[in-house]
Amino acid sequence: MAVETDEQDLYVKRMRTLQKQMGHGGFDAALIMQPRDLFYYAGTAQPANLWIPVAGEPILFTRRAHALARGATWIRRTVEGNSYADLRRSLTEIGALPKGGAVLGVELDVVPAALVNSLARHFADVTLKNVSPLIVRQRFVKDPAEVARIREAVEAWEEGHRQVLSRLVPGRAEYEIAAAMEYGVRNAGGDGVVWFRRWDGCLPGGGIVSSGPNAWVVSGHAMTVTGVGMNQGLPWGASDRRVERGDLVVVDYGVTKGAYHADMARTYCVGKPSTKQQGLWDRLIELHHTVIERIRPGVTGEELYRIGAEAADKMGMTEYFMGVGADRGTYIGHSIGLEVDDWPVLGEGSRDPLVPGAVVTIEPKFMIPGLGAVMVEDDILVTEEGHEMVSTLGHELFYV
Amino acid sequence: MAVETDEQDLYVKRMRTLQKQMGHGGFDAALIMQPRDLFYYAGTAQPANLWIPVAGEPILFTRRAHALARGATWIRRTVEGNSYADLRRSLTEIGALPKGGAVLGVELDVVPAALVNSLARHFADVTLKNVSPLIVRQRFVKDPAEVARIREAVEAWEEGHRQVLSRLVPGRAEYEIAAAMEYGVRNAGGDGVVWFRRWDGCLPGGGIVSSGPNAWVVSGHAMTVTGVGMNQGLPWGASDRRVERGDLVVVDYGVTKGAYHADMARTYCVGKPSTKQQGLWDRLIELHHTVIERIRPGVTGEELYRIGAEAADKMGMTEYFMGVGADRGTYIGHSIGLEVDDWPVLGEGSRDPLVPGAVVTIEPKFMIPGLGAVMVEDDILVTEEGHEMVSTLGHELFYV
Repeated sequence: MAVETDEQDLYVKRMRTLQKQMGHGGFDAALIMQPRDLFYYAGTAQPANLWIPVAGEPILFTRRAHALARGATWIRRTVEGNSYADLRRSLTEIGALPKGGAVLGVELDVVPAALVNSLARHFADVTLKNVSPLIVRQRFVKDPAEVARIREAVEAWEEGHRQVLSRLVPGRAEYEIAAAMEYGVRNAGGDGVVWFRRWDGCLPGGGIVSSGPNAWVVSGHAMTVTGVGMNQGLPWGASDRRVERGDLVVVDYGVTKGAYHADMARTYCVGKPSTKQQGLWDRLIELHHTVIERIRPGVTGEELYRIGAEAADKMGMTEYFMGVGADRGTYIGHSIGLEVDDWPVLGEGSRDPLVPGAVVTIEPKFMIPGLGAVMVEDDILVTEEGHEMVSTLGHELFYV
Repeated sequence: MAVETDEQDLYVKRMRTLQKQMGHGGFDAALIMQPRDLFYYAGTAQPANLWIPVAGEPILFTRRAHALARGATWIRRTVEGNSYADLRRSLTEIGALPKGGAVLGVELDVVPAALVNSLARHFADVTLKNVSPLIVRQRFVKDPAEVARIREAVEAWEEGHRQVLSRLVPGRAEYEIAAAMEYGVRNAGGDGVVWFRRWDGCLPGGGIVSSGPNAWVVSGHAMTVTGVGMNQGLPWGASDRRVERGDLVVVDYGVTKGAYHADMARTYCVGKPSTKQQGLWDRLIELHHTVIERIRPGVTGEELYRIGAEAADKMGMTEYFMGVGADRGTYIGHSIGLEVDDWPVLGEGSRDPLVPGAVVTIEPKFMIPGLGAVMVEDDILVTEEGHEMVSTLGHELFYV
């Protein structure tokens, strides 16, 4: 085994926690197939099927790159096998095949239907049930090693930020600013991918770069300051619009390093901001701090969103807060980790209390048609006592 | 409508072709949900559900960004509706609800099981059947506008190549070379994403950069020259290894521009290649041309692979061709388009003849443990008369 003992203890603890929750949830076993979840429990995203019984030891069925997977995982029992037929045969030989009527946990939210249908044919006598709710709730609480990786991703984001500052001049296209962001992040050791759990989630390299009139367009699936993208095949993110003197430019990017995300946003002004722009920014930062101050164990995402909405209301900014008109969102942030859209979204209906070890983003924005958008996003660790900023980049309206 | 008439004709033709195939396949209607397929048939990847009856006109159910979706699609009938309950209600009102026992086409290979299960609950009286085989076979044949976009993606790849040449010096990390590749591609207007159809497919920005001993490691899901990646969360692609004088460095990247991919690879030498390295490269290029010469309508992917394997055999290179030992692949290329892994793979079992309008890659490689890997990949259009190179970058072993 390539892993050290304390790291192995961490993985054993993770697996025991899942097994305990599987017991409460009525699962007899789980088959983990999604690469992020595999990495979390097995220690590698090599192609594999991870079999976790509700009690006892797991088995990693390696699908390819077998020796690499064996060398990377802490799991002692590994079997080479790419197909569900192989899997069933091995479980039978080992005497670990679930009994008829057993409940098998599968990540039904992410595994394609055809694959689940094939699994169901090979295990016709068991019931398949979505195990992802247990997984994403467990992943909500980060251990110190995970927080350390998020901090490194924050540093990569900041290197991207420095590249943006060095390129932000009138005439530069949004996509050139995205290229600069990505160049900084990658040269800082970023992984060069953004992981979403939602099947249709996607963010191009460099993330959202949205300037001028693009900044009050709400496009795509899930975000609010979205940009309009390069073409209808990806109609969000940076476009070919060239920034002009006086523009507000939002850069929002979920950066991965060491497999963990930092998700941050800052707003830049092309040239010195006007009094109006600066005033808008100052109110945003006031609201941002009002929300962040309230982060502590026990507070819910819904409460944090409402604190933000009330602050916007007091400022007379309700109609510009978190979107425009019918496209306004009712959220203020989300959890981050192995996926940029880690569970949960912090917004209306989010009634699970924050707990120590959670890392969340707070991302308020004002979008004013005709003027532009301002947005800030930071990453915050929930601690026993309250919270700690993970991202510490300054809160000024940057300009060049 | 934002689209022009000849473009609209193209989309109408695409839809009629699908409807014809749906008729042959016994489908009464199809519900297209995957963003690449939506873009292909509706003209936009905005979040939407596209309803295509086997005869008659389609309906685009826009899920968000409604006005943007309406402005971008050629489809006349659009309905705002995010949920399957909305969808069923609208179809009932319109009188378009399929009868009991009808067959509804769904992209079962890519849509998550939970979503398909939800759809099945809302349409309990219809049978859901995988419609993707019809879609990917249709997408196999590109129209001239699609080929033009692939040509633009090739140009973006070549700008990345120039950036790689400018950075390739001893001591540079593989990830810094990937950063340079990506920087070139993005500044040339690349989209900054790589689309895979396979649910677990992923390529980081800048693609595979694999040097020295990393070049004979086969990692991950689908490729052969893979690199070892930055960490176990993404154990393929560029690593933090620093290249050394005399190294062979393979760069393999599926670049997107205008939503279409170019997938190319070249091999670089850090310093002047040795006679042995140059000889290895020259044999690879000879094999490459031997395969490409045979591309014409009617030839199958299996035949092309076997032509390559025979050429390797004549050279005495069988044990190094397309991999190492048990990790050797039995393919020689694949189709490209809206996805980098467009159907089909050209290899053993691929017995569908090539047809005019198909754009395929040919990507031979030799991997020699202890020496390194050489790989070349080009994109080729199948024409009535034979073929035409879409990528035209020189076939020298580049060095700096």
